[in-house]
Amino acid sequence: MNKKHSFFKDSEYHAFTALEKAHFLSYAPYAFQASVLLRDYGVLNHLNQHTNGLEFEQLHAPLSISKYGLRILLEAGIGIGLLTENEDKYLITKTGTMFITDAMVKINTSFMRDICYEGAGKLKESIETGKPAGLPYLGPWKTIYEVLSKLTPLQSKSWFDFDNFYSDSVFPIIVQQVQAYKPKNIIDIGANTGKFSIQCLQHMPDIQMHLLDYPGQLAMAEKNIHAAGFEGRYHLIPNNILEFEKEITGKFDIIWMSQFLDCFSDDEIIGILKKCKKALNPSGVILVNETFWDKQPFHAAMYSLQMTSLYFTTQANGNSQMYDSRVFLKLIEASGLTTLKEVHQIATTHSLLTIQ
Amino acid sequence: MNKKHSFFKDSEYHAFTALEKAHFLSYAPYAFQASVLLRDYGVLNHLNQHTNGLEFEQLHAPLSISKYGLRILLEAGIGIGLLTENEDKYLITKTGTMFITDAMVKINTSFMRDICYEGAGKLKESIETGKPAGLPYLGPWKTIYEVLSKLTPLQSKSWFDFDNFYSDSVFPIIVQQVQAYKPKNIIDIGANTGKFSIQCLQHMPDIQMHLLDYPGQLAMAEKNIHAAGFEGRYHLIPNNILEFEKEITGKFDIIWMSQFLDCFSDDEIIGILKKCKKALNPSGVILVNETFWDKQPFHAAMYSLQMTSLYFTTQANGNSQMYDSRVFLKLIEASGLTTLKEVHQIATTHSLLTIQ
Repeated sequence: MNKKHSFFKDSEYHAFTALEKAHFLSYAPYAFQASVLLRDYGVLNHLNQHTNGLEFEQLHAPLSISKYGLRILLEAGIGIGLLTENEDKYLITKTGTMFITDAMVKINTSFMRDICYEGAGKLKESIETGKPAGLPYLGPWKTIYEVLSKLTPLQSKSWFDFDNFYSDSVFPIIVQQVQAYKPKNIIDIGANTGKFSIQCLQHMPDIQMHLLDYPGQLAMAEKNIHAAGFEGRYHLIPNNILEFEKEITGKFDIIWMSQFLDCFSDDEIIGILKKCKKALNPSGVILVNETFWDKQPFHAAMYSLQMTSLYFTTQANGNSQMYDSRVFLKLIEASGLTTLKEVHQIATTHSLLTIQ
Repeated sequence: MNKKHSFFKDSEYHAFTALEKAHFLSYAPYAFQASVLLRDYGVLNHLNQHTNGLEFEQLHAPLSISKYGLRILLEAGIGIGLLTENEDKYLITKTGTMFITDAMVKINTSFMRDICYEGAGKLKESIETGKPAGLPYLGPWKTIYEVLSKLTPLQSKSWFDFDNFYSDSVFPIIVQQVQAYKPKNIIDIGANTGKFSIQCLQHMPDIQMHLLDYPGQLAMAEKNIHAAGFEGRYHLIPNNILEFEKEITGKFDIIWMSQFLDCFSDDEIIGILKKCKKALNPSGVILVNETFWDKQPFHAAMYSLQMTSLYFTTQANGNSQMYDSRVFLKLIEASGLTTLKEVHQIATTHSLLTIQ
């Protein structure tokens, strides 16, 4: 881990600064909720457009919020560091501006608000049962994957915004690397909405794409791939990847898994990789696209992945995570496969492993 | 506000640091939950006792937690800044040590965990209804004051630890200041457990104490004051302070309100002060003990009070707060009274206002 960018330069801290960090943590959930409302009521945006500051009454006039409500939020914002007060005027800080303008911060914040907040309180139960004990706040389900279509519109927007944000930037880059193998057929395991398969079909006119996922998910992917006009070049393989005795039909030049294995536990990853091994042509390769927290160049990216692990624990399935590459590489080894190549920091945060 | 101690020196930040703060906030609830578990499972304590570091297996052996659970918590702890990793050993940071050793941090953290966390998610609803929309997570009540005796043992411990921590240090100091007035009688409004009344009776052998509160609360106070042996020198006045037409029986040399008015809204404070004015002897004074966030010498103290305001919003009664002294002094003026004297930073965080 590259430490030079860390915002927690703890060893350089005065003990007093460490104490203040500890205090900040002690009330962090209220700090989060107040920050979200300062954003959602438009207070930060309003201040961002008036960099000379605004008085309380000027801030209050256009908002549909009680004076008491605005007052406690502004005061909280001072403590949190989103805004300051000077001679009866409120001014946005740099942190405040970042909180409302950075796309990743915004997406993570809404994901936390709509998908994770309540369930996060069940982290202990989730760890102790190995089940996502926070998921019942979203619905009466066993894992989140079966039921993404059943979320409320707000939850659904927050979930897919989050999910897409991290993969969209990396696909065009990785498709080029896949092309270099000159494959005849590719299987996209965990095909999701078919987004990657469509890109492969567009860029490689001769290939046949095979999409493997839950039947429900495949129906959604087929709609997209059919609409994109690739009839005759794609094949659907409904398969529960965790039924290890049920082999994957066919042999493939490339087995593609993009941010898929992080949805599983150590033992499940080994099982999936063994299952993949049997479906590989002799000269074929398994390509794994992942985000490893230990390979991030920025502390905030590392932190976001570590916190995303907790989403997997409390909301998704209770036993998966965004991995440390050192842990992940050992799982590949344990499945009897070899990692031929590691490329890190693709589109900043992604890694591509070539496995055989 | 004294800014020299602020841990949010935003104007000096590089934009990149501000962006990292914003990222930290976006996942703050998970950061809180993981920190609490690293504390409660004893991981931080274990590391604090082995300052040369411990390997994963050494950490795992004495704990009753899955390896997966421990791994995601340790990894989260790295991002949060509670611990670091170096050559396969985990080491506690200064922030980690502060998080498990500072009494105020510990009390605030458990208060957040047991009383506030779930309800904090209802901050928006609380602001919009003027009611503590998070209170139903604790029980089917209108305000928290009527029902403190109905909390679970864990919730009760966290609430009273929090409540007592802030008043215990200041009473002995303030009793001396009350003594200087040589009062014959004192009324303790919002007498709570009778703690302050008992201290007055101990230090001023000639006075008569009058305790005003809800009947249920007075029963608890009487038990304590009776056990302390002050029979014949105390008088109970059951009164709902918000029934403004129902006057307080008697005239008093000192009307005492300790961290009481912060439990009420602006208009209610004006109403209570007007009611007090009628119960004051001609040479009597109203003494108000409060913690004002704008009078704190340390950023963390200011922040804690601003976050405590949000507890008042979501859990207590939906319309009160830890006040800015500038707002509070205007309410005193609006009630037709005069602030004769302000003393701040008593036992670091408290203020004593003398009003007539």
